[in-house]
Amino acid sequence: MTAPVMINAYDPSSAGNLDPAVSELIARRERVLGQPYRLFYEEPVHFVRGAGVWLYDAAGNKYLDSYNNVPSVGHCHPRVVEAVARQASQLNVHTRYLDEGIVLYAERLLQMFPHDSSRLMLTCTGSEANDLALRIARTHTAGTGIIVTANAYHGITSAVAQISPSLGLHVPLGYDVRTVPAPKDYGGARDPGEVFMRDVEHAIADLRRHGIRPAALIVDTIFSSDGVFAGSPGFLAPAAEAIRAAGGLFIADEVQAGFGRLGTHMWGFMRHGISPDLVTLGKPMGNGYPIAGVAARPAVLDEFAAKARYFNTFAGSPVACAAGMAVLDVIEDEQLMENAHTVGLHLKEGFEALSKRYPELGSVRGQGLFLGVDLVSADDLSPAPQLAARLVNELRRRRILISASGPHGHVLKIRPPLPFTTEHADMLLAATDEAMKALTTSVG
Amino acid sequence: MTAPVMINAYDPSSAGNLDPAVSELIARRERVLGQPYRLFYEEPVHFVRGAGVWLYDAAGNKYLDSYNNVPSVGHCHPRVVEAVARQASQLNVHTRYLDEGIVLYAERLLQMFPHDSSRLMLTCTGSEANDLALRIARTHTAGTGIIVTANAYHGITSAVAQISPSLGLHVPLGYDVRTVPAPKDYGGARDPGEVFMRDVEHAIADLRRHGIRPAALIVDTIFSSDGVFAGSPGFLAPAAEAIRAAGGLFIADEVQAGFGRLGTHMWGFMRHGISPDLVTLGKPMGNGYPIAGVAARPAVLDEFAAKARYFNTFAGSPVACAAGMAVLDVIEDEQLMENAHTVGLHLKEGFEALSKRYPELGSVRGQGLFLGVDLVSADDLSPAPQLAARLVNELRRRRILISASGPHGHVLKIRPPLPFTTEHADMLLAATDEAMKALTTSVG
Repeated sequence: MTAPVMINAYDPSSAGNLDPAVSELIARRERVLGQPYRLFYEEPVHFVRGAGVWLYDAAGNKYLDSYNNVPSVGHCHPRVVEAVARQASQLNVHTRYLDEGIVLYAERLLQMFPHDSSRLMLTCTGSEANDLALRIARTHTAGTGIIVTANAYHGITSAVAQISPSLGLHVPLGYDVRTVPAPKDYGGARDPGEVFMRDVEHAIADLRRHGIRPAALIVDTIFSSDGVFAGSPGFLAPAAEAIRAAGGLFIADEVQAGFGRLGTHMWGFMRHGISPDLVTLGKPMGNGYPIAGVAARPAVLDEFAAKARYFNTFAGSPVACAAGMAVLDVIEDEQLMENAHTVGLHLKEGFEALSKRYPELGSVRGQGLFLGVDLVSADDLSPAPQLAARLVNELRRRRILISASGPHGHVLKIRPPLPFTTEHADMLLAATDEAMKALTTSVG
Repeated sequence: MTAPVMINAYDPSSAGNLDPAVSELIARRERVLGQPYRLFYEEPVHFVRGAGVWLYDAAGNKYLDSYNNVPSVGHCHPRVVEAVARQASQLNVHTRYLDEGIVLYAERLLQMFPHDSSRLMLTCTGSEANDLALRIARTHTAGTGIIVTANAYHGITSAVAQISPSLGLHVPLGYDVRTVPAPKDYGGARDPGEVFMRDVEHAIADLRRHGIRPAALIVDTIFSSDGVFAGSPGFLAPAAEAIRAAGGLFIADEVQAGFGRLGTHMWGFMRHGISPDLVTLGKPMGNGYPIAGVAARPAVLDEFAAKARYFNTFAGSPVACAAGMAVLDVIEDEQLMENAHTVGLHLKEGFEALSKRYPELGSVRGQGLFLGVDLVSADDLSPAPQLAARLVNELRRRRILISASGPHGHVLKIRPPLPFTTEHADMLLAATDEAMKALTTSVG
């Protein structure tokens, strides 16, 4: 029995000589943390400080963060830190007492949604948000069937792991879960939206054939763990219509795509002109403070409110809402969505140019500051996960942080903090160029 | 269809005249938050500041907090606030990079556990901790059957809601979940430990009769939502042995009882001289910062580590661990466990004395600063949830915060921040005395 593949994980059996201080910290860590914990990189990094798009190791070296979307407005952004510190010193209670902070935050956040997604439920993590969305959808529809993409990742609670095929073969999907191929570009031969809709319809029919009523189609609107796919605006609309026609809900998982990262819109689903029944939020929401949530059409919550009790002890606290509010302030004041758009275009063009020079760099996908770049074999263009892992580690040696994902582990995942500038983009591109030169030359 | 009973919830249809500012804030809140949200009290309170055992409303009135166990070392404790602020301004990353904070915290925390509970997995909430414990137990045992007490509450993910009968009839238990009566005092007629063990054995047999392999017995070691029960030290041991003899695990849910609240031990299970397979932690762990976790026997994690991937984005971050560490420092430096013991004894004696004077105050149970007091009918000693709700609201008018729980909603739940002194205890007792006088006189 083997653990599911995690590209880019530290493997003590194949690691080279590590810095003794790093080795000792790893040994101490392994004595006290559970065995499921993993570290990034052949040579794990020990950071001691972060600021903006930079992380600093114990020796004072700085690393360009091109990967982490949680510190979305920049590592340790002073406005978020100050908001958390100020509120934590003043009041931190749960939602069964009145607090103006949660109301102000919900009012502000919901203005960024279509008019009918007008109610907010707060949780602490994206997993909890997706788990709650499942409970709401299953209660509202009286169905249980869930449709997900083939390598989706929606989180790690028991129920959400059952709709997350990317967790690997040893984490079984639920009996009432069906997968559909992730949308992709057919080079004009077929319409991705049409194909995706037909696949969803097929999954609906298969659920019904098994006596399972469809509850929801849930999609990560940037298809991150499926290898990153933005697609043409609007292509998701037919599939959303299909699940609704079958009595199910359309859930937009914005945990990764949301909060302006895609540059043109605050949320990925907005590119498609659709209004989801439920929208789940997470990672960048508090710039590292644990806050996540679900925006909902009010009618969808009626049945759940009548039947179930939902109280999340830490969620929606004054401190969580202060963090969330500060993040919205910074996104707006520093025009980070616009920056994601501009720098994202520049970065995408840069990778497209590189891919013309290196046959091992294949398709470049995504939008804004969420890009995926395929690493492929120069011979037959087949997925090259080992090359992706070597590139990721080569970039780490050049002090650029990145990772790889996708069903074959061959997709470079580029997802930096949003204050990433064109200069930072150029550093990433130059380092990728050098690393590819070194790797493809040494390979021969 | 009706929502599950929540004693002490604000009900707009029966509320009196509220302060206009409070009414307006409620109206705004209801426009933007999901319908499942509830407020405490006939007349909800709007707090704007907290310090120690006190909360302050917008008009500057102070309320004695006799209920909230999350701000366990005191509302807005400056050492915790400072630790969070300092770390948040320096570094906040996930656990796939090396960080000494998580290692130091795990080393320190695990010293407080039996030697064989030597590995830590961190989550953000107690619900996530219990959900992870279920995943681990089910993977380790290759069984799915879970045994819980009759009115248990373990959290709100899909899987954990299925083992939380206290959520009400409209939230169905899993097909593989069995309930056993919560332990209670039989007045010497029967041994509670023997009865509980036999009930667990009966549930194991019933699971097997349905072809379900037992995975775990999980108990809240203070049986909070079952109405609070500490019982004689050691009484839980036979039931823990029974589930192990059947190949299942014993999970101690310390989300409510843990971190010194019971006065004599850091964890409730330690009163029983047992060493659980899994221990789940939550609420008071970060004094309001979202941190929770699972302490485990290493062998129990082997199968899970081999089969599953578990990465919790926000959990175990440097900031979460700084909050957790500061809480342990304060518990130790301010001798809060010892205080819980001393003040808890004083408070329990005080309620016992009151119960001799008011026939409506029945059994007084619990240990340390976690007490339950039954409200009963003076006529036939039957549960009196309406009286409990009136007492809770009467105390709120006297600016004392408290709530009620238990299967019938008739148990006063007393669970203050740990810096509660004998003077605070005397205030609570005096106010309860006055409130009971007012209520029982007006009733006639």
